[in-house]
Amino acid sequence: MELANYLNEVVADVDAAMDGFLPASDERPGSIHEAMRYCVFAGGKRLRPVLCIAAAEACGGRREDAFAAACAVELMHTYSLVHDDLPCMDDDDLRRGRATCHKVYGEGMAVLCGDALLTEAFAVVAKSGGSERFTAAEMISELALAGGSRKLIGGQVLDLEGEGKKLSKEELVRIHEAKTAALLVTSLRLGAMSANAEPEVIEALTEYGYSLGLAFQVIDDILDVTQSSEGLGKTAGKDEAVNKATYPSVVGLDESRIEAARLTKSALGALEVFGEAGVRLREIAEWMLLRKY
Amino acid sequence: MELANYLNEVVADVDAAMDGFLPASDERPGSIHEAMRYCVFAGGKRLRPVLCIAAAEACGGRREDAFAAACAVELMHTYSLVHDDLPCMDDDDLRRGRATCHKVYGEGMAVLCGDALLTEAFAVVAKSGGSERFTAAEMISELALAGGSRKLIGGQVLDLEGEGKKLSKEELVRIHEAKTAALLVTSLRLGAMSANAEPEVIEALTEYGYSLGLAFQVIDDILDVTQSSEGLGKTAGKDEAVNKATYPSVVGLDESRIEAARLTKSALGALEVFGEAGVRLREIAEWMLLRKY
Repeated sequence: MELANYLNEVVADVDAAMDGFLPASDERPGSIHEAMRYCVFAGGKRLRPVLCIAAAEACGGRREDAFAAACAVELMHTYSLVHDDLPCMDDDDLRRGRATCHKVYGEGMAVLCGDALLTEAFAVVAKSGGSERFTAAEMISELALAGGSRKLIGGQVLDLEGEGKKLSKEELVRIHEAKTAALLVTSLRLGAMSANAEPEVIEALTEYGYSLGLAFQVIDDILDVTQSSEGLGKTAGKDEAVNKATYPSVVGLDESRIEAARLTKSALGALEVFGEAGVRLREIAEWMLLRKY
Repeated sequence: MELANYLNEVVADVDAAMDGFLPASDERPGSIHEAMRYCVFAGGKRLRPVLCIAAAEACGGRREDAFAAACAVELMHTYSLVHDDLPCMDDDDLRRGRATCHKVYGEGMAVLCGDALLTEAFAVVAKSGGSERFTAAEMISELALAGGSRKLIGGQVLDLEGEGKKLSKEELVRIHEAKTAALLVTSLRLGAMSANAEPEVIEALTEYGYSLGLAFQVIDDILDVTQSSEGLGKTAGKDEAVNKATYPSVVGLDESRIEAARLTKSALGALEVFGEAGVRLREIAEWMLLRKY
């Protein structure tokens, strides 16, 4: 199967699972459940669930056993977007090609909607029963670490505090690690855990995810400079407009492109232990690098 | 031991446990960890952890085995206060006698601080190992249900949507159930679960917590009408100022007082199965009713 078909299939499966996990829109109070579904079913790339499921399958696991973890990482990612888009944070009107949550439902509801998506992320894993080798609580610990004040939230703090300041390359990498790489790594690790993977396999996926996450963020930064809002599905040139440090602004556009390629090569190298079973993960890394930047 | 001494002892123990669970203020990024500690160590009554630990002890459990659950319910309560106080929600400047999180650290940081406290609540239980009878994941499911879009968050949604509207007594009770009673019930249930309690004991605590939670909220509504800001440690008359429906505004002050007493009696009735072991829980209900309202 071609990668594009594989991605479509996985996204359809994850969306169906997500539909089952989330409260129905007509469950009271309907407004919050409608808002949650508006944010979740907004046509994102579903990169995190795709990585989760591809990792589970690379480890010989069944796709359905990874659905809970796949939905949880996407719920956590979505909550972080909803809160990051708020006027008191990045103040974004457009996300995934349509109006952000607070533009449609108001700021108070957007705060609550993000809170509810985050809570649901933990609920989904808690109800999953874990795998033979890993308890659901161990998987929740991974998720909480990636989403907590040392990683995802901490990265947004550093991002807010860095606005208007000149950052070093090291400081910028630290933000990218925390804001992006940590949750990609966790997506892969949770997929592997749902497939009862061995520790050394989980370690290889951690290395893969770390390089892939940094590459992904460098490419996002490049695209923010080089693409139109229409192509991005979100406000382009936003980072420069708010004087936010980006990879291109710190090391230049050419150097950023070289770095993205170097990181992708490093990600691919980490997959060698998988042999033929790592084909999807390899294709995903190549697909991410081949985005036009 | 007198109740006041018991409460002081439990609060000191819970605060020490909380200090151990939370990231240190100098752990990077320091600003978010400082904000988290500012909100958590603000001298609250710690009613939820007290109920959690009193329930565990009423079930014959060891106090230290309930610390994780006790800290988790307080972290969840604190996060909900931080977000509820935001300008886009209840817009409160004062909480527990001092400036609210967003007044000190800014709105963006207050959103992130609440997010981090919520994430930490789940992390604490995930790392606890659960009890012999209940897994940590089962305890997290309880916590997520109480904190989710159907209960705690849903109650705040109903509250926001009810502002300026005339609510029926039933609608108001529904808000109180969701916003307050659900997390008190869960505090008691998690305490009991950490003590390996039997299902019928957990059921009795559920009834106790439900009545106690509604009584607590009715009394809070009464105090908002009858007390000064100084006595409350938060802005008094706030509910009336924003035209928010309260128990006194819907059924009158006298009827509210009768309802508070009736609910407390109902809570006490639910404790009969405990006999002498339920003395602390009984004293706590009486203490809550004897607050001057």
